Amino acid sequence: MKVYEFKGFPNPARIRVALAEKGLFNETEFVHIDVPGGDHLKSEFLAKNPSGNVPVLELDDGTLISECSAITEYIDQIDGEPDLTGRTAQERAVIAMMQRKVEAGFLDAVAAFFHHATPGLGPNVEQYQNEDWGRNQLEKAVKTLHWMEEVLQNQDYIAGNSFSVADITALAGFFFAGFVDLDIPENCPNVAAYAERLKARPSVAQAA
Amino acid sequence: MKVYEFKGFPNPARIRVALAEKGLFNETEFVHIDVPGGDHLKSEFLAKNPSGNVPVLELDDGTLISECSAITEYIDQIDGEPDLTGRTAQERAVIAMMQRKVEAGFLDAVAAFFHHATPGLGPNVEQYQNEDWGRNQLEKAVKTLHWMEEVLQNQDYIAGNSFSVADITALAGFFFAGFVDLDIPENCPNVAAYAERLKARPSVAQAA
Repeated sequence: MKVYEFKGFPNPARIRVALAEKGLFNETEFVHIDVPGGDHLKSEFLAKNPSGNVPVLELDDGTLISECSAITEYIDQIDGEPDLTGRTAQERAVIAMMQRKVEAGFLDAVAAFFHHATPGLGPNVEQYQNEDWGRNQLEKAVKTLHWMEEVLQNQDYIAGNSFSVADITALAGFFFAGFVDLDIPENCPNVAAYAERLKARPSVAQAA
Repeated sequence: MKVYEFKGFPNPARIRVALAEKGLFNETEFVHIDVPGGDHLKSEFLAKNPSGNVPVLELDDGTLISECSAITEYIDQIDGEPDLTGRTAQERAVIAMMQRKVEAGFLDAVAAFFHHATPGLGPNVEQYQNEDWGRNQLEKAVKTLHWMEEVLQNQDYIAGNSFSVADITALAGFFFAGFVDLDIPENCPNVAAYAERLKARPSVAQAA
């Protein structure tokens, strides 16, 4: 397997951590795409992912998988342990739901703030910016952290008492939040402890 | 099972069609939520889905599943035929990828145009509007239709030659596009034929 990515960016980190959790990190080749230089917008990369973003997983038969939730689903299915996406229909649904809520409400919202309400990756890469939208999405991210605080009052991880892909998405959100100086609100101690718990996982050190 | 929804809205339609495809439509109770009246923003509904949107699936044990992709995943897993989310890891990844691309690039983009660049559901329901963002998302939707045109040159459905949840998401996008008078571009004949093929499915008539 090959992963086209930019090391250190939040979405590629999701794939690195998922691979490390599953013991597949050393079997994967990582291919550097110069995103700040705009290589993700060139035709060679757009042929791999018409959405023009990293990461992209390329299977040995040439099949290309983009969209992080699809890539982590694949990584989880090809090897058994530990389970990251759930085993029963109900577990799978709860994890998929929480993954999507954390993705839309936190990680993607922080990303929208970065790309729209800050210089982002610079004028050569940011083709459209809408500052008001970016600020609105920052509010959404903070609101999501407060919702996560409530969820984490009753459980250790965002989709229950086991680590899952929903936590990997949250971890990427915490990385991105740190990058844009968004602090975890002081009245969210469960979120703060959870973020530290995630960052301390061995997979995060291996993925770094 | 119960589904909290607003009949005729695009995202609830995804669940209705998935249930009909799986032969589960008549076993499901549908509970009307008055979204134009703002009932989805009241505490009673927010306790079921803190994201404040329909549909929400309630299982017989009280478990609440929101986010359409999680609900359709559940519906597909509880009954065998026809398969809507893929059987092998690779099939599952391709369908998940295409579902997410159609959701983000078409259905959600048309929804953003409706909620931001038109009166949407009116001033009592639309709490934040950003017209420029809405217009940007309309451009994204049109761009996605052109990408779909290329994909459909080589296959009958958006994730391959079998109907899948990715097509259910596209179907909801076509419904929403019709509602906001977004026509399929004339140079996208494959998309136009595909939309008609989807709308002609028996599940669509049952779900209506």
